[in-house]
Amino acid sequence: MTMRKIAESTVRRLSLYLRCLEGFEAQGLETVSSDVLAARGGTTSAQVRKDLSFFGSFGKRGLGYSVRELSSALRGILGLGRRYRVAVIGAGKIGSALVQYPGFRQRGFDIVAIFDADTRKVGEAWDGLRVRHVRELDQALRDQPADIVAIVTPGEVAQGMVDRCVALGVKAILNFAPVQLQVPDDVAVKHVNLALEFETLTFALNNR
Amino acid sequence: MTMRKIAESTVRRLSLYLRCLEGFEAQGLETVSSDVLAARGGTTSAQVRKDLSFFGSFGKRGLGYSVRELSSALRGILGLGRRYRVAVIGAGKIGSALVQYPGFRQRGFDIVAIFDADTRKVGEAWDGLRVRHVRELDQALRDQPADIVAIVTPGEVAQGMVDRCVALGVKAILNFAPVQLQVPDDVAVKHVNLALEFETLTFALNNR
Repeated sequence: MTMRKIAESTVRRLSLYLRCLEGFEAQGLETVSSDVLAARGGTTSAQVRKDLSFFGSFGKRGLGYSVRELSSALRGILGLGRRYRVAVIGAGKIGSALVQYPGFRQRGFDIVAIFDADTRKVGEAWDGLRVRHVRELDQALRDQPADIVAIVTPGEVAQGMVDRCVALGVKAILNFAPVQLQVPDDVAVKHVNLALEFETLTFALNNR
Repeated sequence: MTMRKIAESTVRRLSLYLRCLEGFEAQGLETVSSDVLAARGGTTSAQVRKDLSFFGSFGKRGLGYSVRELSSALRGILGLGRRYRVAVIGAGKIGSALVQYPGFRQRGFDIVAIFDADTRKVGEAWDGLRVRHVRELDQALRDQPADIVAIVTPGEVAQGMVDRCVALGVKAILNFAPVQLQVPDDVAVKHVNLALEFETLTFALNNR
């Protein structure tokens, strides 16, 4: 299986199915139908079956899916059976929100370093993590490689930071800066654009 | 045209195409091909043509799209030809990041009110906006209706806040709280889940 074959929208739905399944696990449910997963994931049962079919054969006709087996399989598919080391570049409001959000640690993401170019921020302690100057970035990532780097810098410096991270072997970038990043084919980039989220809503407000 | 026929993933791509077109406008380009738009939007030229075909006939075979005409049409389709009044409920880190992010104002989103239940935060001024107590929410939205409400509260209070907003006539909710919200059919909800963004990357790291 290669990454290329699986659309990002499919991966996103797998994450949503997993959220539902974990809720059902907590409630003690043993099986769930594709209809129920579809309703929770905002899609159709045919789409649920198609999404899962990329990864193997799950569930029994008429019986549905085992909540425990399917959630375990999805955690494996999504790579959530391990912990990830995340470095954050940019100690502004969003960087701060990332560091302090308890949901990340719960899901296996450990924020292990935060960097900023502003000497006034360097040395501040955020949740026990000291903000370091970006000039320490290369040495820090060599000493303690990061699995994922979150870019929370102004747009004009983002690409330079990403180039440094890529040169240091980082293979996954979560980009909050308002620019398109250029990376080699073997590096995954996920762009988070909060203004785009609003535009889904303005479309809805104007098309009903 | 009804909202139901257009998938959220399509709307998202329209936003991305618009971003590209605005970049081309700034560079003085007059026309653009569906290939170029596709490359920038991370999709295929067939998908670009299909996405646009929902909304009318754009471009000329062999000549591509007029950058100015298509960006103007997309702004209209996405409802970006006007300004939107946004209220933020929750004055934590993410609420603060929303209020101070200049990109929203540039795109037509004016944050007009922010609320919190924590009396220590009430009265603080954020970018000239005073944090108000959530008990003032109903009166505030009656006096000055909001087009969009951003929910940036803890999960356990989110639904109650949304119910109050819906009763006051709010038709669009941007939800950052880690819960599924229940709303009537005529209310649009967009759920922003930062942990899901990380999972797109863990999938990529584990499937290449």
